[in-house]
Amino acid sequence: MPTVAVIGDGQLARMMHTEAIELGLRTRVLAGDADASASQVFGDVRLGDYTRLSDLEGIARGADALTFDHEHVPNENLQALIDAGVRVEPRPAALLYAQDKLEQRTKLGEIGAPVPDFAAIASEEDARAFWSRVDGEVCLKATRGGYDGHGVWFPGSEDGFADLVAELLGNGTPLYAERKIAFTRELSAMVARNRSGEVRAWPVVESIQEGGVCRVAISPAPDLSGGLAERCRDLAVRIAEELDVTGVLAVELFEHTGTDGQPTVTVNELAMRPHNTGHWTQEGCVTSQFEQHLRAVLDLPLGDTSPTAPWTVMANVLGSSLPALTDALPDVLGAFPDARVNLYGKDVRPGRKLAHVNVSGQDLGEVRRRALGAAALLRGEPLPENRTDETKA
Amino acid sequence: MPTVAVIGDGQLARMMHTEAIELGLRTRVLAGDADASASQVFGDVRLGDYTRLSDLEGIARGADALTFDHEHVPNENLQALIDAGVRVEPRPAALLYAQDKLEQRTKLGEIGAPVPDFAAIASEEDARAFWSRVDGEVCLKATRGGYDGHGVWFPGSEDGFADLVAELLGNGTPLYAERKIAFTRELSAMVARNRSGEVRAWPVVESIQEGGVCRVAISPAPDLSGGLAERCRDLAVRIAEELDVTGVLAVELFEHTGTDGQPTVTVNELAMRPHNTGHWTQEGCVTSQFEQHLRAVLDLPLGDTSPTAPWTVMANVLGSSLPALTDALPDVLGAFPDARVNLYGKDVRPGRKLAHVNVSGQDLGEVRRRALGAAALLRGEPLPENRTDETKA
Repeated sequence: MPTVAVIGDGQLARMMHTEAIELGLRTRVLAGDADASASQVFGDVRLGDYTRLSDLEGIARGADALTFDHEHVPNENLQALIDAGVRVEPRPAALLYAQDKLEQRTKLGEIGAPVPDFAAIASEEDARAFWSRVDGEVCLKATRGGYDGHGVWFPGSEDGFADLVAELLGNGTPLYAERKIAFTRELSAMVARNRSGEVRAWPVVESIQEGGVCRVAISPAPDLSGGLAERCRDLAVRIAEELDVTGVLAVELFEHTGTDGQPTVTVNELAMRPHNTGHWTQEGCVTSQFEQHLRAVLDLPLGDTSPTAPWTVMANVLGSSLPALTDALPDVLGAFPDARVNLYGKDVRPGRKLAHVNVSGQDLGEVRRRALGAAALLRGEPLPENRTDETKA
Repeated sequence: MPTVAVIGDGQLARMMHTEAIELGLRTRVLAGDADASASQVFGDVRLGDYTRLSDLEGIARGADALTFDHEHVPNENLQALIDAGVRVEPRPAALLYAQDKLEQRTKLGEIGAPVPDFAAIASEEDARAFWSRVDGEVCLKATRGGYDGHGVWFPGSEDGFADLVAELLGNGTPLYAERKIAFTRELSAMVARNRSGEVRAWPVVESIQEGGVCRVAISPAPDLSGGLAERCRDLAVRIAEELDVTGVLAVELFEHTGTDGQPTVTVNELAMRPHNTGHWTQEGCVTSQFEQHLRAVLDLPLGDTSPTAPWTVMANVLGSSLPALTDALPDVLGAFPDARVNLYGKDVRPGRKLAHVNVSGQDLGEVRRRALGAAALLRGEPLPENRTDETKA
C-alpha cells in the first residue's frame, strides 16, 4: 500500500489525509504538536522538528513519497533525503522558487512570465534608486519567510522607504522591491503536475483578500474573458513545467489594465502545495486539490478537474467570537443545509484560519450569500444583511 | 469538540471518519483488529470486543454519541450504556428491527408497510403448512445473523423444505419463512433521521445484486415512475419514524408487478447504518450518507440530499486477482480520470468487499460503462466489452 509522508501538521495536511483514505493510501505526518490540526486525525503521527534531518529521515523511512503542507523545510535536508533515495515532491530545486521571492521573480522573468519591475535591495542606495525608477510605486518584500501579508510593506515616501530598508537590513532581513501593481482584483490559477509530466489545470478563480489573506474564492472568476482565463491557465502550466514543479502549484495573479488598455495579469506569488484558493475544489470539482496533490507526488495519473457545478464559492473563517467552532454547527447546518463545512480542529485565536465553507449552485449571488452567511455564523457573527450590492462586496 | 465513538472497524466506520474530519468532530473506533479498514485511518483506535460491556463502556466514556458500522452489539449492553447516560444512536429498540427479521416483518406488517406473507417456522409442521399456504413459493430465512445472502434459502420441494427446517432448527437457528417475491428489480430507499425528528431522504436507487450482494447502484433508479419513487421515499420516511430510527436507514425494496398489474414495491430488508446502496452519495449528493449519519447521531441538523449530477453509478469491487488493489491505481486512474475510487485498505480475499467506484455524469450509459470499467481494473480484470446492451446488464 503506497505510503505518503507529510511534513507539517496544519489543515492542508489534514485535508490531504481524508483524500488519502479514499484512495487507500497510507499516511504519516511529522508534527510539531500532538494536538495540531493534522495530528488529531492522522493514524500515524510522529512528533518532531521539520528542520532536523534525523526527524525527516525517520518519517521518510519506507515511505513512497514525502511532501509538505508548508515550504519551510531546509532544502539541504531535502537534498540529503533525495541523495538517500527518498522521493521528495516537490523537489528543492523547484521549492526554491516558492521559498525565495527574489529567485522566483528572477526565474519568472527569465522564462518570460509577466512579473512587475523588481530589484534586489541590499542598501539604502538601492532603495532610493528603485524609488526613482518606479516613481514611488514601491512594494517592499522580504525575500524569504513572508506569508499571508507578513513580510510585505508599502512605504509612503522615499525617506521612509530608505529608513525602513536600513532597519530591516540591520535585522538581517533579505529584501527586494517591486513596482506596486494597481490591480483591479486578484486571481488564482492552479495546476497539478506529476513527475511524468502530466499537468492538469483547474478553472481560474477570483480571490478576495483582506490584509493579505484570502477571505473568499469564487469559481470560476466572474466576468473573466475566455481569452484571459486561458492565458492564466497556460501561464500556470508553463510555470509548472519550466520550474519542474510536482504536486499542486498555485499561481496568484493580479488582474490589472495593461498598456493596451485591456485586462491583463501579472504574477503575484507562487505556492507549491494545496492552497487556500483551491479549497473550493473539494466539492466544486471532480478531483480536489488534495487528492490531486497526492496523485502527483506518487506520480499517479491525475484526475479530472472539471467543475461539478456552475458556481462554487469558498468562504474562509478567520478567528471567531465562539469558544469553539463546533458550537456553531447546530445553527450553521440548520440555516444552510447545502453548506459544506470544513473545520480544522484548531483552538480559536484572533485572525487564525479555523475553517472554510464551500457552497455550490446555479446562481452566483445566492451561492455567495450562503457561503458568506455560513462563515459568519462560524465566526459567531450575525448573518450579513441581504444587501443588493452583496455580490460586489 | 463533539466526539463520536464508532463500534466496528470496517469500511463504513472508515468512511464515517473522513466525514468526521471535515465537520471537525473527534472520532474513536472500537476495533477487533489493529490493521482493519477503519483502524488504519482513525487517530484513536481502541482494540476490544464489541460484545464485552467493559470495552463498550471504555469507548463510550466522554463521547457525545456512540454508533455502529454493524448491527451485532448485544442490545442488553447497549441498554446498559443508555442507562448510564450514553447517547446510543440508533437505540436498541429500533436496532431490534434490523437484527431480527421476524420482529421486523411483524412490526412492518403492523404499521401497514408492504411485506410478503410470512410466518415463524418453529417445526416441520410449520414448514409444511407455510409451503401449502404460499404454493411452494418459499423463501426461508434465519431470523438473526444473516447478511449479504447468508442465512437465506430457497427450498425446491416441500420435503426438502421440511428437512432443511429440521436441520437448521436442530442447529439452533431461529427461522421464519416468507412468500418469495417474483421481483423485476431491487431498489433502495434511504433516509436519515435525527433524535429531534428531522428526516431527509435521498433519491431512490436501483441496486443490482448478485448472490445477495450489491454489485452496482444506479441513482436515480432508471425508469422509475415519479409516483412510485415518491411512495418509496414516503415509505422509508414512515418506517424511520414509526420505528424511531436515528441515523441512516436503508430500506431495500423489491419492485414487482402488483395485483393491479402496475409496478409496486415490497420491503426486503432494513439496515440502520450507512449502506452499500448509499455509497454513491459520497460524490453524487450534496451530503453523503456518512456525513448525514454523523449529523443524525449527534442530533445536528441534516444536510441537503440533492443530487450533484443527473446520474451517479456506484460499482463494487468484490475480490481481485491483484495482490493489492493499489497496484491497479496507475491503470484505473489513467483510464478513468473522473472515476472516484474508494479503497478500503483490506487484504484481498475472494468475494470480499474491497472497494467501490463512483462515477457521475449526464449520460447513464457512459457513466455506467466507466464505473464498471474502473471496478473491473481494480479486480485485475480486462475492461468489459463495450456491448450495446451493456446498460441493460
